[in-house]
This record gives sequence, structure tokens and C-alpha cells, in this order.
Amino acid sequence: MHRELFYSFQAYFFDLDGCVYFGDALAPGATEVIDALKQSGKRVIFVTNNSRSSAKTIAEKLRTMGLETPSADVVTATDCVGTYLSERYGRLSIRAAGSDELCAALSAAGHIVVFDNEEAAVDAAVIGLDIAFDYRKLEMLGAAVGAGARLIAANADLSHPGLDGGKVPETGALAAAVEAITGLRAEYVGKPEPHLFAYGLERCGARPEECVMIGDNYNTDIVGGRGAGMRTIWLDGRTAAERSRTADEYRAADWIVEDLAELRRIMEGLDV
Amino acid sequence: MHRELFYSFQAYFFDLDGCVYFGDALAPGATEVIDALKQSGKRVIFVTNNSRSSAKTIAEKLRTMGLETPSADVVTATDCVGTYLSERYGRLSIRAAGSDELCAALSAAGHIVVFDNEEAAVDAAVIGLDIAFDYRKLEMLGAAVGAGARLIAANADLSHPGLDGGKVPETGALAAAVEAITGLRAEYVGKPEPHLFAYGLERCGARPEECVMIGDNYNTDIVGGRGAGMRTIWLDGRTAAERSRTADEYRAADWIVEDLAELRRIMEGLDV
Repeated sequence: MHRELFYSFQAYFFDLDGCVYFGDALAPGATEVIDALKQSGKRVIFVTNNSRSSAKTIAEKLRTMGLETPSADVVTATDCVGTYLSERYGRLSIRAAGSDELCAALSAAGHIVVFDNEEAAVDAAVIGLDIAFDYRKLEMLGAAVGAGARLIAANADLSHPGLDGGKVPETGALAAAVEAITGLRAEYVGKPEPHLFAYGLERCGARPEECVMIGDNYNTDIVGGRGAGMRTIWLDGRTAAERSRTADEYRAADWIVEDLAELRRIMEGLDV
Repeated sequence: MHRELFYSFQAYFFDLDGCVYFGDALAPGATEVIDALKQSGKRVIFVTNNSRSSAKTIAEKLRTMGLETPSADVVTATDCVGTYLSERYGRLSIRAAGSDELCAALSAAGHIVVFDNEEAAVDAAVIGLDIAFDYRKLEMLGAAVGAGARLIAANADLSHPGLDGGKVPETGALAAAVEAITGLRAEYVGKPEPHLFAYGLERCGARPEECVMIGDNYNTDIVGGRGAGMRTIWLDGRTAAERSRTADEYRAADWIVEDLAELRRIMEGLDV
């Protein structure tokens, strides 16, 4: 990839976890890449399947890492599930398994979030990343769906990488248990579905062909970005030499780089 | 089905929940059918995917319902998981999500059950019906399997019918979440796998062709019983008139009756 080609877009969509940061550590090159884009007058939008923290919380995290970011430029599954449901189905009553921030976002989007111990029929059962998920919630969501509620999951991710190299259970794994009971497939909101990308496009006022999606997760970032009509850069974590051995795996991303540090070298005209 | 044919077996294997009882209520006809078989010198074995209660607990429940039963005649997934693992893999260290009775049965079979808060590599992660299942246990089992432990589930049942007509999450739904994280399929011990049937055959000393399996769950009792080499009677909950409309669905069970009450009438020579 050439410097000029990389700079040819109007807006740059970045995934966050595994791309801009790893847990609480900023990725090498992230600050330089993003600052250089902003200084060139480009729009930078962050698009994350995070279904636990709101945009405000994540923008604050980015700020403490040295990346000053308006929360409007952070598109999270946490905030968008409620908006998505409002636009599609109107105001709903909802039983949710998820973080307080997810529930607050659902309420902010106009829905009625029913409390765990409240006996009530609901329109939808919503699942986000819920570290307080338990058997009782599984039963509760299963019963809601059994009684006719829609089953909605913030994202289909099964796990995300933990700091110790292990896998941290994600929304999709919790949804799998509810799907198993109900025999239904959840309606998914996050990447690779087009919804978060569409919200990001609205916020930066760009057309998809003017944008590039940059991320580490092939199945969500690259498949999703391409599905939204954007070009895509896959940070696949391997050097060019390692990649060359299995080049035919990689036809669907427009470009492949190792990580943001390699992207930075491209931007500085050091790699071609 | 004729009376003489029904009486032609040596041993009668019965499923429990949904067949002999529904939750805490004995099924109509259950006492009469089972007592009549015993009075005719037949062996009666109960085979259940229950992975929460031991044979002793279930035999006690049957006793309070008026069905005097030695616990050796009750074959449960709860007790058999440990035996199965011992026979196949020897003594293992195990992280388990399951009831106290499941953990006790694993210990009784010679395994070392590692406590939740203990840091230890284990040979196997075992899942039973665990009403205390939560996100932390999901993470713990996922990590164990990620580090190389075998993934074992007591049974593949996704739910069982609740007293209010809803679905109660079962072992298979919890296993689905761990399978989602790990990308592996669990090794299942309960019906329709042959293991519980094999233990039942050992206990009554009969050959499969001398036995009949009677149960309400087509996928576990009938498929499993047939797989174990037994003849099968499916209690499918519908009257003969209802069934006749879709007769071609039912080729895999040897006989189909509505419930134990119908079986009782057959035994008394009232139905042919």
C-alpha cells in the first residue's frame, strides 16, 4: 500500500479493542496514525462492538490514553442497540442482560427496561456483554422469548482476547445459550451487520466509498466494512513474510498490514 | 401393541421426567404399570439425563411417590459422568459447573474436583445442570478448555419443560455457551449416547434385545434406546387419532402410545 493511496480517503473508521488498544494499553503507533490523520483534516470514527461501555466512557478512556476524541465520534454497540430498535420497531418494553450503561442507553433511546424481579410481558429480550450473567437471567430471557419477545444481541462476538492470552466470554456466547433454549437465532446489531457502520457514516457525513475501515477482526471489521461499502485494511498481526505463505486466504480485504505500527510507516512513506 | 408382546421382555427401561413423573407429580398410570411389571417378575430400570440429583436422591423421590426402588435401579447422568470418565481416561482433575451431588459423584468415581477459586490446570471441564451457573464459571470453563482440558457435558438436553409450560434451561444450553467460546463440541455422556443404557444393562444383567426403552423424548429416549439395541416405546402425548394424521413421522419407534395410562390399558388387555 502506498502513502498516497492511504491518504486518499475522507474518513477513517477504526475498530478499538485489538486495533487502537489492547485492553488498557494503547497499540504502538496508534497515537501517531490518528494524530497524523486528524492533522491532515481527515475524519476519524471509532466503531466498536463493545456492548458494555457507552461512547462517553470510551471517549474518556481514549482521552486518558492521549487520544482526544468527541464521544460523537465513538460508535458503540452499547449505545446503538436502543437506537436500532427504536428506528425499526418503535418504543419497546425490554428485558435486558447487560451492563448498567447498556440499560441506560436503552432507556435513553425511549425504551422501557423492565427490572429483573418485575413480572411483565416484554417486546424484546436484549443481550449485551454481562459479567453478571447467570442461570436465572438465562431462564428469564428464555421465558421472555418463549412468550413471544424478539431476541436481540448487541453483537455476535463469541469471545475477545483477555490480557493473559485467554478468551473472555462475549455477548455471542451468552446469546448462544438463549438461542439453544429457544431454538431461535438472535437478531444481531453489531459488526459485521451494517448498522454501526451506517451510524458512523451519518456522524461524519461521508459516503461509504469515501471511507476505509481498519480493524483486526476479519469476520467483523473486514467483512462488515466491505458489506457497508467501504474499503478495508486488515491488521492481521502477521508480517508480510508470514502472510506470503498463505496469500490466498486474504482476498477479501483490500489491504493487509501487520498492525498500526506498519500503517504508520506506510503513512510516513517508509514502507511501500 | 398387544398385551403379550408388551410382556415379552425381560427388562423395562423407563425415562423419568416427562414419563414416570412430571416435575413432582407422578404420571397417571405410572404406579400401576411399574407395579404390574414387578409383580410379573420383570426388571425395571430408570434411566435419566438428570445431571443434578444422584440416584439416591431420585430413588428417595420415587419412594415418596409410592414407587419403592433400589437406587441401583436408577441410572442418572449425575452419577455416570464420573464413572464414564474413569473408565475411559482414568483418574482426572476436573473443574465442574454443576450441583453438589454431581461434584460428589465425580469425587466418588476417583476424580479430583478442583474448587472454583483454586488456580490449577485440569484434565477436564465438566458441565451439568447448574442453577448457580454464571459468567465467571463460563470464563473458568472456557479457560480450562483453552488450556487443553477435555470438555464434557452430562447431557445435550437444551431445556426441560417447566411446571408453568415454560422451558427450564438444561445442561446443553450451558454447554452451548462454552462451546461457543472454545469452538469445540463437548463430549456428551447422557442419552442418546449409549453409556447410560450400557450401565443399565449391566445392572439388570439383560441383553439389549431382551429390553424395551420407554420414554417421552424422541431424540434422547427413542433414538438412544434404539442405538443401544433395545426395542422402544414412544410416549408421544398424542392420541392414536391425532397420530394417524402424520404416521410417517414415526417409523423409528417400535411402538407409539399416548402415555403410561394407555400403556396400562394395553397391559390389562383393554386396548389392542
